Amino acid sequence: MILSIGLNPAVDVTYHVSTLTVGTTNRVNRAHAHAGGKATNVARVLHQLGEPVCLISMAGGRTGDDFRADLQSSGIPAELVPIAGATRRTVAVIDAAAATLLNEPGPTVSRAEWRTFLMTYQMSLSRARVVVLCGSIPPGVPTDAYQELTELAHSAGVMTILDTEGPKLLKALAARPTVVKLNLEELSATMSRDVHDDADLAAAALGLRERGAQAVVVSRGSDGVVAITDSGIWQAVATTISGNPTGAGDALAAGLAVGLAHGREWEAILIDAVALATAAVAVEVAGAVDVAVLERVRTTVSRRPE
Amino acid sequence: MILSIGLNPAVDVTYHVSTLTVGTTNRVNRAHAHAGGKATNVARVLHQLGEPVCLISMAGGRTGDDFRADLQSSGIPAELVPIAGATRRTVAVIDAAAATLLNEPGPTVSRAEWRTFLMTYQMSLSRARVVVLCGSIPPGVPTDAYQELTELAHSAGVMTILDTEGPKLLKALAARPTVVKLNLEELSATMSRDVHDDADLAAAALGLRERGAQAVVVSRGSDGVVAITDSGIWQAVATTISGNPTGAGDALAAGLAVGLAHGREWEAILIDAVALATAAVAVEVAGAVDVAVLERVRTTVSRRPE
Repeated sequence: MILSIGLNPAVDVTYHVSTLTVGTTNRVNRAHAHAGGKATNVARVLHQLGEPVCLISMAGGRTGDDFRADLQSSGIPAELVPIAGATRRTVAVIDAAAATLLNEPGPTVSRAEWRTFLMTYQMSLSRARVVVLCGSIPPGVPTDAYQELTELAHSAGVMTILDTEGPKLLKALAARPTVVKLNLEELSATMSRDVHDDADLAAAALGLRERGAQAVVVSRGSDGVVAITDSGIWQAVATTISGNPTGAGDALAAGLAVGLAHGREWEAILIDAVALATAAVAVEVAGAVDVAVLERVRTTVSRRPE
Repeated sequence: MILSIGLNPAVDVTYHVSTLTVGTTNRVNRAHAHAGGKATNVARVLHQLGEPVCLISMAGGRTGDDFRADLQSSGIPAELVPIAGATRRTVAVIDAAAATLLNEPGPTVSRAEWRTFLMTYQMSLSRARVVVLCGSIPPGVPTDAYQELTELAHSAGVMTILDTEGPKLLKALAARPTVVKLNLEELSATMSRDVHDDADLAAAALGLRERGAQAVVVSRGSDGVVAITDSGIWQAVATTISGNPTGAGDALAAGLAVGLAHGREWEAILIDAVALATAAVAVEVAGAVDVAVLERVRTTVSRRPE
C-alpha cells in the first residue's frame, strides 16, 4: 500500500474562456471542479493503475465537502482529517494560448488539527510500504513537517518519496528521504542558483545527496529524468508526446512509488515511471494517464557509475 | 417594501494579487467571498439605508449554501427558491492596475423551479410598492421573463424598475416598466448602435420610451445621469468622488426604488439616487455606500421640457 500525503490540498477549478483579457469581464464558457493538489493527483494515478493507495489529507468548510465528495465519487480511498478552516481553491483559466493559475493560500491549520493529522498518519504507516510526501505546507503546520513525517515513516520501516522544494525540502534532508523528486525549476529554487546544464544538475543533485537524500530524481520535461542513486547516475528519456505537461510530475512520483513498493531495481523503476509521466502528458487533466499511450511509449535508460 | 429580484445570482469571489500575469501561476494574497449579483447589491444598499427590502432569488448546491449563509449573516431578508443546479461564482481578480472578471454561466433552471419562483414572486407582490428587476437571465428561464415579471407587478399595483439590457429589455418594454435604468454601454448594446453624445443619448432613450418605458434613466459614470420622464428631461450630476465604480449602478437603482416607494417627484428622486451612486463609489466593495460621503455629496439637477 502506498500513502499519498497532501498537507495543502485544493479544489481545482478550471475555467475555459475564449481569450483571457486582463482588465475586462471574461465570460467562462465551461467550468469544472475536482479534488486536486499534487498528493491527490498522485493518489488518482495510483488508483487508476489499480495500485493500493490511500490519500491522507485535511478538509474543511464547504470546499472541503466538495473535496471529500469528489474523492468518494472517484472511489479513491482517503482519510481526511477535518479542519475548521476552509479547503482552498485553485483556479486555472485556460484559453487557446495559455493557462493562468490563481492559487489561494491554504487555511491555517491549528496545533490540535496538526496533532490529529500526525496520529492519523502514524496509524496508517503500519499498512504502508511507501509514503509520497508532496506539495506546499499550509500556515500553522511546522516548516519542518516533512522532516518529521519522513522520520516517522522510516521508524515504521516505510520508504519515503519527497516531492517538494526550497527550505522545507532542505530541512527534511536530515531525515534521509529514500527519494527526493523535483524538476529543474524546483532544483534551481532549492539551491538558490540557476541549474541549466548537465554538469550543474549533477552537482546540485549530488549536493542534495550529500545533505541526506538517498536518491535524487530530477525531471527535465520532455528531456526525461536524471536519477542520482546508490547504483550510479541514470538517465531515462521516453518517446515525446505532445499534450498538457500539468500533472506529469505527479505521475512520475506515482511511478517511483510503484517501483519502490514492488522492490524493483532503478533501471526498471525509471522505465515505468518515465513512461507513466509521458502517458500523463497525453491527458488534459492532471491525475490521469492515457493507458493506450502507456502501452505504446518506449523509455531509453542509460547509466554511468557515480 | 421594495423587492429586489435576482434571476442569476452569484457568489462573488475577490482575489487580490500583486500583478495578474497571464500564462503563469499567480499567488492570491487575499481572498474573500460574499453573496453578489446586481439584485443582491441593490438589496444590500437598501438594507444599509434601513429601507424595508426583500431579495427574491434562487440558490442551489454548496455555492447556494454559501450564498444563503452570507445573506443571513448580513441580516438581509431574502426568499431563495431552492434549485437543483449550483449557484454560480464570479471571480474578480484585483491587482494594482485593473480588475479582471471571470463570470461563470448560471445553472440551468428547470421549468418547475421557474414556476415556484413565479409563485414566490407573486405572493411577495402583495407586500411591495416597488420591484427592482435586474441582471441576466439564466438558462432555462424564458427570455421574456422580465416582461412577465413586469406585468405581474403592474397587475398587483406595484411599480417596476428594470435594470438590464439587450433583447430581454426590449421584450419587457411591452409591459410598460415604470423606469428603465441602464448605462451608456448597455444603451448602445440594446440599440445596436454606438451612443456617445447627448443628442444620440436622448434619441436612444426616447426610442425606449416610445416602445413602452414610462421613464428612462441613463447613467454616464461621473457625468451623472439623464432621465427622460413624463415631467421632462432631467440631468443630475454630483460632486466627483474617486474610488471603485463597481456597484454604483446598483446603488443608483436602489436610490430610484427608494424615491418611487416614497412617492417623490423626479427632482427629489434624482438628487438622492445620484448621491447614493456617488457614495457607493467611495466604498471598495459593491453593495455598500459610504454614509459620510452620502451626507457630504451635493447633486445638481437641471430640467428641460421634453
